Amino acid sequence: MKPTNRRKFIATSAALAAGTVASATPLNTMANKYPVIHHVLFWLKNPSSKEDRDKLVAGVKTLAKIKLVRELRVGVVAATEKRDVVDNSWAVSELMFFDNIKDQADYQNDPIHLKFVETCSPLWEKVVVYDAIDA
Amino acid sequence: MKPTNRRKFIATSAALAAGTVASATPLNTMANKYPVIHHVLFWLKNPSSKEDRDKLVAGVKTLAKIKLVRELRVGVVAATEKRDVVDNSWAVSELMFFDNIKDQADYQNDPIHLKFVETCSPLWEKVVVYDAIDA
Repeated sequence: MKPTNRRKFIATSAALAAGTVASATPLNTMANKYPVIHHVLFWLKNPSSKEDRDKLVAGVKTLAKIKLVRELRVGVVAATEKRDVVDNSWAVSELMFFDNIKDQADYQNDPIHLKFVETCSPLWEKVVVYDAIDA
Repeated sequence: MKPTNRRKFIATSAALAAGTVASATPLNTMANKYPVIHHVLFWLKNPSSKEDRDKLVAGVKTLAKIKLVRELRVGVVAATEKRDVVDNSWAVSELMFFDNIKDQADYQNDPIHLKFVETCSPLWEKVVVYDAIDA
């Protein structure tokens, strides 16, 4: 058992013993694991340029070197069903997980992040950010 | 070492031995773990109603019972810095991970999902969906 699992086990056991709501939490809910989510969608200046998209994907991947970024998922538009509610007009998705809001703020000023913005911002036309915290 | 970690270790070792690009992959990149991301943002009909928000959060949490949903994160707006690019006008965030696009499509028709839509759709005014796949 890794230390993180052990801590989780102890916390879960304590919660179960106390008869709290934790016992009703579904197993596949990741609640409280890196509770701050930072999701950034990028729209390219040249939406048809696969080269620009790949450059931006490569740029976003450099952000994984930042220690405060606990997990990173870099994506492109998935070929799911086209529905009115689905926005597939973007080009690159950057999904990050942080331990807390302070880490997310500090990440903004990390030299690797600043370098990424300097290098890659000429590629994008628009950025939309959603910052969520576990409910 | 858990079986999943062991598989990852073996795969990484093989990749390192083969001198592939895998050796350059940062450790905190979750690439290829449930590669399909389904992120849904909900705006409430009554944005000031904490009760409606909590009802919707509870409704989204029921979706964790669907086996095809490999991971689920239910969130509310995080108190990160207000910047032009940050959209904090929504109320509830539903972030899901799937093994593949077919599972995401099948999820749409799962009885638990259909029940959720029936029960909770009167609460929301607008929905925006971003479907991404690991790049």
